Amino acid sequence: MNALIVKGNIIYTKEMEQFEVFENSYLVSVDGKVVGIYKALPDAYSDMPIEDYGNRLIIPGFVDLHVHAPQYLQMGLGMNKQLLEWLTEYTFELEKKFKDLNFAQKAYEYFAEDLVASGTLRACVYATSSTAATEILFEILKEKGIGAYIGKVNMERNAPNSILESMEDSLEGTKYLIGKYKDEKLVKPILTPRFAPSCTQELLGELGKIANDYDVPVQSHLSETKREVEWVRELFPDAKNYLDLYGRSGLLKNAIMAHAIYLEEEEMMEAKERDVILIHCPDSNINLRSGIMPVREYLNRGLKITLGSDVAGGHRLAMNEAMVRAIQLSKLINIQSPEVEPLRVSEAFYMGTKAGGAFFGKTGSFEEGYFLDALVIEDHPLVAKLYSIEERLEKFLYTGNSQNICARYVEGKQI
Amino acid sequence: MNALIVKGNIIYTKEMEQFEVFENSYLVSVDGKVVGIYKALPDAYSDMPIEDYGNRLIIPGFVDLHVHAPQYLQMGLGMNKQLLEWLTEYTFELEKKFKDLNFAQKAYEYFAEDLVASGTLRACVYATSSTAATEILFEILKEKGIGAYIGKVNMERNAPNSILESMEDSLEGTKYLIGKYKDEKLVKPILTPRFAPSCTQELLGELGKIANDYDVPVQSHLSETKREVEWVRELFPDAKNYLDLYGRSGLLKNAIMAHAIYLEEEEMMEAKERDVILIHCPDSNINLRSGIMPVREYLNRGLKITLGSDVAGGHRLAMNEAMVRAIQLSKLINIQSPEVEPLRVSEAFYMGTKAGGAFFGKTGSFEEGYFLDALVIEDHPLVAKLYSIEERLEKFLYTGNSQNICARYVEGKQI
Repeated sequence: MNALIVKGNIIYTKEMEQFEVFENSYLVSVDGKVVGIYKALPDAYSDMPIEDYGNRLIIPGFVDLHVHAPQYLQMGLGMNKQLLEWLTEYTFELEKKFKDLNFAQKAYEYFAEDLVASGTLRACVYATSSTAATEILFEILKEKGIGAYIGKVNMERNAPNSILESMEDSLEGTKYLIGKYKDEKLVKPILTPRFAPSCTQELLGELGKIANDYDVPVQSHLSETKREVEWVRELFPDAKNYLDLYGRSGLLKNAIMAHAIYLEEEEMMEAKERDVILIHCPDSNINLRSGIMPVREYLNRGLKITLGSDVAGGHRLAMNEAMVRAIQLSKLINIQSPEVEPLRVSEAFYMGTKAGGAFFGKTGSFEEGYFLDALVIEDHPLVAKLYSIEERLEKFLYTGNSQNICARYVEGKQI
Repeated sequence: MNALIVKGNIIYTKEMEQFEVFENSYLVSVDGKVVGIYKALPDAYSDMPIEDYGNRLIIPGFVDLHVHAPQYLQMGLGMNKQLLEWLTEYTFELEKKFKDLNFAQKAYEYFAEDLVASGTLRACVYATSSTAATEILFEILKEKGIGAYIGKVNMERNAPNSILESMEDSLEGTKYLIGKYKDEKLVKPILTPRFAPSCTQELLGELGKIANDYDVPVQSHLSETKREVEWVRELFPDAKNYLDLYGRSGLLKNAIMAHAIYLEEEEMMEAKERDVILIHCPDSNINLRSGIMPVREYLNRGLKITLGSDVAGGHRLAMNEAMVRAIQLSKLINIQSPEVEPLRVSEAFYMGTKAGGAFFGKTGSFEEGYFLDALVIEDHPLVAKLYSIEERLEKFLYTGNSQNICARYVEGKQI
């Protein structure tokens, strides 16, 4: 039997509203999947080795549904700009360099190392338009042993030529990566039209066909700023709205969309109907002065809301910081509109674990049948002594960093 | 000659508007004070030893004008509460424990270690009402070698009895600490009436006399929430306003006031006239949903604005994070009121170094005559290669932590 038994203070969210807490218990997985949590270990597992983490916390691994790997190097730079200027002055300049595969290797290794250190065990990652550099990123994340959807970025207009490709090259590179990685266990391809203004209707349509033919999911940006929404309307006058543009292109079958700050009524309804996962990227929302996603309103409507670091619009890779910033932004809305409840800690945690994890199958929770993706958290002895399990988790989310994470498991294997 | 020469990429703010940058230069101090920055070392110093930090950054140490040392243990907890409930349910409960001096020793050591690690080299610190525990904090921070004003908290009402004192005991303890530490070089006493509602008019008046007789500065809280402002109006019907209450008590001669979110026109005028230093605590402003200090308006009026971590209303001890959050909050104001310019990086940096440093004499800058308080910052080789000195500093502020700080100097001595 291929079992893993970890022991400690186990805490996770089954529902958004509250934490499930199992003090000093055994979390048992077989073949990478959780079979149960026990106060006393059942006889069936009695001769299995136990990884005993004592008084430490054991929590689901973090899930980041929106992160740009090449931009890790520019994280925290140009934050006085707004989206479209920032893309031109910083991001596109940097992404050019990834055609140098030696540079790409070093930069992606730096990113991957810090991503894993931060506790992110599942991520949806944008690479650049370079197929060869994207292949390097696949290999590095595969080597790290975390789960990731990785996208070569499709873009054929409205950026410097040095990072654009012809539609043919863009599609060919995309298909090559799908062919090579589709059957991998942990790192998988995802279609990644950068955002509507980088693509023609033709390219979007071709990507839609690939999505259908190869059954590959899709990630892109949606309604991040008012100027961008206006621009999309000008570029694609036939689409009813921004989301409809992706929908009519066949790109919403299994899709995650970052930002979604300025959705029209019809878009919210379509997002719900088509099960589109929306990704809240709180730091990026403020840093680029894009606006704030109305998270509570979307949750009340039953939309699926998850979290992304959006490095490098966001300036922190660690998802506990994205959770905290999501709570902080919700409080700013609450200060102005007291009837809009701020996010609870359990809600933010759920968004950054189980809600995001659902995109990878059964991950992000410790319920039976879920893949065992876990972090072991060590806090200060004084804190461990003074506070409850739930308080200690809250404290780690607010104040902790990679130094507090003393072990990481993906599908029941330590990485 | 008692000289210190450090070499590297030197960057600081003389004015708020811009950074002064000296690439690959020598920063020379004699007897702890800066004498100059040179591209080539003057002959007078040619046989002095040089601490060569190569391509690293050398920046002024961080200054935190508002931090509650005992609350470090509860940092990141109870963040779903608002100020007055949070104080009652978390803070007062914790502060009780500091009467146990063994506990105080351990808790304050934990705080002091992380404070210094984070790069804070000057701080204005609240202890608790326990005189003996405050003495322990003095000794620990003295041992650490950083500059600090430390205040035994004066409070005689509106909190649990276990942390209240009679006026007599409170004054006696205060005078004892003044007597013991007034002539210390780096750790000094500061009068610390917790906030107006914890004191009677009589206690405030007695503290005002001490401020005058012993020439000791004052720290307190001012207009943090609307409910508190209202409460102060009820408790002290004779005062014209919250600031006037401190003023008429003789407590504004050399005073720093935290939060100051809801100042009336008259208070702003009085704060300016009396040179009161106001402390912006951005994380605390949001976490406790108190509101946001209108920093740009205050700056335009010529008020002195500095930064505080306000641990544990704030959830991060590191002042680079307070700088970033100040910028983020200013952007949120800018999103809603585009005519209100967001804070620039240099402005936030100035607030957390030179503006705050002024309370300690000439600290927080590398101009001639300033005490040499410095941090040496190491970043990733790829970042150092790609970006300018100013960009590298911005990146450290946004993304860095204690692990990037490889040396700390206070008054020309490595600590």
